[in-house]
Amino acid sequence: MTPAALQAACEAELARLWQGHADGAHDLGHVRRVLCNARAIAAEEGGADDAVLVPAAILHDAVNLPKNHPGRRRASTLSAEAAARFLAALPGYPADKIAAVAHAIAAHSFSAGIAPETAEARILQDADRLEALGAIGLARMFHVAGQMGAGLFDPDDPLATARPLDDRRHALDHLEVKLFPVAAAMQTAAGRRMAAERIEWMRQFRHRLMTEIG
Amino acid sequence: MTPAALQAACEAELARLWQGHADGAHDLGHVRRVLCNARAIAAEEGGADDAVLVPAAILHDAVNLPKNHPGRRRASTLSAEAAARFLAALPGYPADKIAAVAHAIAAHSFSAGIAPETAEARILQDADRLEALGAIGLARMFHVAGQMGAGLFDPDDPLATARPLDDRRHALDHLEVKLFPVAAAMQTAAGRRMAAERIEWMRQFRHRLMTEIG
Repeated sequence: MTPAALQAACEAELARLWQGHADGAHDLGHVRRVLCNARAIAAEEGGADDAVLVPAAILHDAVNLPKNHPGRRRASTLSAEAAARFLAALPGYPADKIAAVAHAIAAHSFSAGIAPETAEARILQDADRLEALGAIGLARMFHVAGQMGAGLFDPDDPLATARPLDDRRHALDHLEVKLFPVAAAMQTAAGRRMAAERIEWMRQFRHRLMTEIG
Repeated sequence: MTPAALQAACEAELARLWQGHADGAHDLGHVRRVLCNARAIAAEEGGADDAVLVPAAILHDAVNLPKNHPGRRRASTLSAEAAARFLAALPGYPADKIAAVAHAIAAHSFSAGIAPETAEARILQDADRLEALGAIGLARMFHVAGQMGAGLFDPDDPLATARPLDDRRHALDHLEVKLFPVAAAMQTAAGRRMAAERIEWMRQFRHRLMTEIG
C-alpha cells in the first residue's frame, strides 16, 4: 500500500465519519496540514514510521466534539478506537502497526492527559499543536471564539493586567491561557523551534493589535 | 455638555438598546475605537464638529442586525432614527445638530447605499472601515466567520486562483471580496493613508498564512 493510497483511504473514512460534523477549524485542510507538519518534524527527528504517521494524522480528529462538549476529554480516545477499527478492516494495512496509530491519536490531545510514548505520538502531538500557533493558529483562535460566542478581547483591559485571564469570554486571553504554554511544552526539538518562531509572530500580532486599539 | 458627558450618555443609551443583542465584533470597545479613529482623522482633515462625531460614533450600530439578517441593509437607517430620538430627548443636546448625526449614521454603512454629504459622515464611514482592516480587522473577520458557520479558507485553493470568490463559505476570501476594495474607497486623505498601512499588514499576514499551510 503506497503512502498516497493509504492517505486516500483514510481521508475517505474521515469524510464518512464526519458527515455533517465538520467545522471550519477542523476540516480536511487541518488534518492534511498536520500530516505535512508531522512529516517535516519526522524528517528532522528520525525514528518515525510514515505508515503510522499517515493514518494517525488524517484520523486524529475522527471523533470531533465541540470545545464546550462535556465528553470532549474522551474525544481522542474515541478517535483512536475509530481509527483502529477502520485500519483492522483495511485490506493491506499491517495489523502490527495499528496499536502505534491508536496510541498516537489517543495521546495527541492535551486534555486527554495521556503521555506520548513513541516517536510517532510525540511528533503527532507537536504537529497538531503547530496548527494552534502562528497565522493559522490566530485565524483558528478567533474563529473558534466566534463559534462559541466569546468576544475578541476585554475592551477595558485587553491584556488582563488587572483581572483573571478568561479565554471563554475573551479570545485574546487564549494566548496566555493555552497557546504560549503549549509552545513551551513541545515534545521534539524540531517542533520546539517551529513553535518558537510562530509564537514570536503571535506576540508581534498582539503588539500591533494593542497599538491599533489604543 | 462636555464631550465626556455626551459620550457617557450615549454609551448608557447604547447599553439600553443593545440589551441581549451585543456580539463579540460589535461591542462597546468597537464603538469607542470608531470614535477614537474618527477623532484622529478629524484632527488631520478639519471641518468636523466633535459634538456630532461623538453621538454618531457611539450610536452608529445602535440597531445591530446579524450579517445574514434580511433587514440588514436597513440597520443604519434604523440606527440613525434611534439616535435622533434619543438626542431629541437628551437635555442640553443642541437640536440643530441632530440631523447631522442622523445623516452620518445613516450613510456610514456600505450596504445602505447613501452617499456621505458632510465632513462628519465621511469621517465616520472611514473610521468604521478602519475597524475592518489591520490586526483588529483580521480578528473580526475570522470571528464573524466562526459566528456564521463559514470556514477559514478553501483548503484546495485558498487564494481562489481557479474558483469564484465566496466569502460566505471562506473567511479568507473576504479580503478580496470586501476589504481590499473598501480600503480603495476611503473618503478622506487621512483615512486612505491609515487604510493603506493596514491593508499592507493584511497582505503580509496572508503571505505568511500561505507559507504555513504549504
